[in-house]
Amino acid sequence: MDITILAVGKIKDRSYLQKTEEYAGRIRHDARLETVEIRDADPETEGEKITSHCRRGNARGNARIIALDERGKLFSSSEFAQQLSADSRRVIFIIGGPFGLSEEVKKTAHELLALSRMTFTHEMARLLLLEQIYRAISIIKGRKYHK
Amino acid sequence: MDITILAVGKIKDRSYLQKTEEYAGRIRHDARLETVEIRDADPETEGEKITSHCRRGNARGNARIIALDERGKLFSSSEFAQQLSADSRRVIFIIGGPFGLSEEVKKTAHELLALSRMTFTHEMARLLLLEQIYRAISIIKGRKYHK
Repeated sequence: MDITILAVGKIKDRSYLQKTEEYAGRIRHDARLETVEIRDADPETEGEKITSHCRRGNARGNARIIALDERGKLFSSSEFAQQLSADSRRVIFIIGGPFGLSEEVKKTAHELLALSRMTFTHEMARLLLLEQIYRAISIIKGRKYHK
Repeated sequence: MDITILAVGKIKDRSYLQKTEEYAGRIRHDARLETVEIRDADPETEGEKITSHCRRGNARGNARIIALDERGKLFSSSEFAQQLSADSRRVIFIIGGPFGLSEEVKKTAHELLALSRMTFTHEMARLLLLEQIYRAISIIKGRKYHK
């Protein structure tokens, strides 16, 4: 599995940073994981950088681009795992900043995924996504992973 | 607002502990907040303790009991805020342990709330709930609170 996370903004909070690095480390036992941080700006400027990264990441047309959006599709953890295991190709996740994603980014994405109907901070969304990717790998590999 | 969180198990991870305490501190500027930790056991033993706490907390029949459950109702953050502000009485949230909530607890609750369709760790669920309560208070008070 080859996973890229395109995220607007940095994780500044030390506790979140520690936890995201912990999950990233666990994921890297089983998958390639790259995180690209896009500098905070207006959604259009951010959007251009995101779509340009997506174009490069999907140059061979083999990547699945999934943007996080509250109004997107809701998955259970096992449905999310099923989807990730079905996508043997590259997966690019996009996490917007405080002002959301531009229309261009939403159009570039193959899928809009909602972690929840609730609004989370950008840092929490990154943490949750990593935890769900790690959980998905554990489900795919049939490993025990405590709630 | 008078909020009680009945949670099975302790938060052991230092990063999660730090963040939950941070949000709890922020919530306490505007609301009474108490957290009661129930010792990990089987769902039935945990359930008896939870329902006994609920009975005491709702002795005057003025508390709203909300249990967190993946199969519960999904709210947006503003719907959640609306509900919290409508419940001027006491609110008791219940967060189960790794083995979930007993049927007795689900029956005791007035409502089952889903933070997401995804499964989170117990510690993450506690952090998310606190963040959403803090966000709800910010929405009710009309304060700016960054995503």
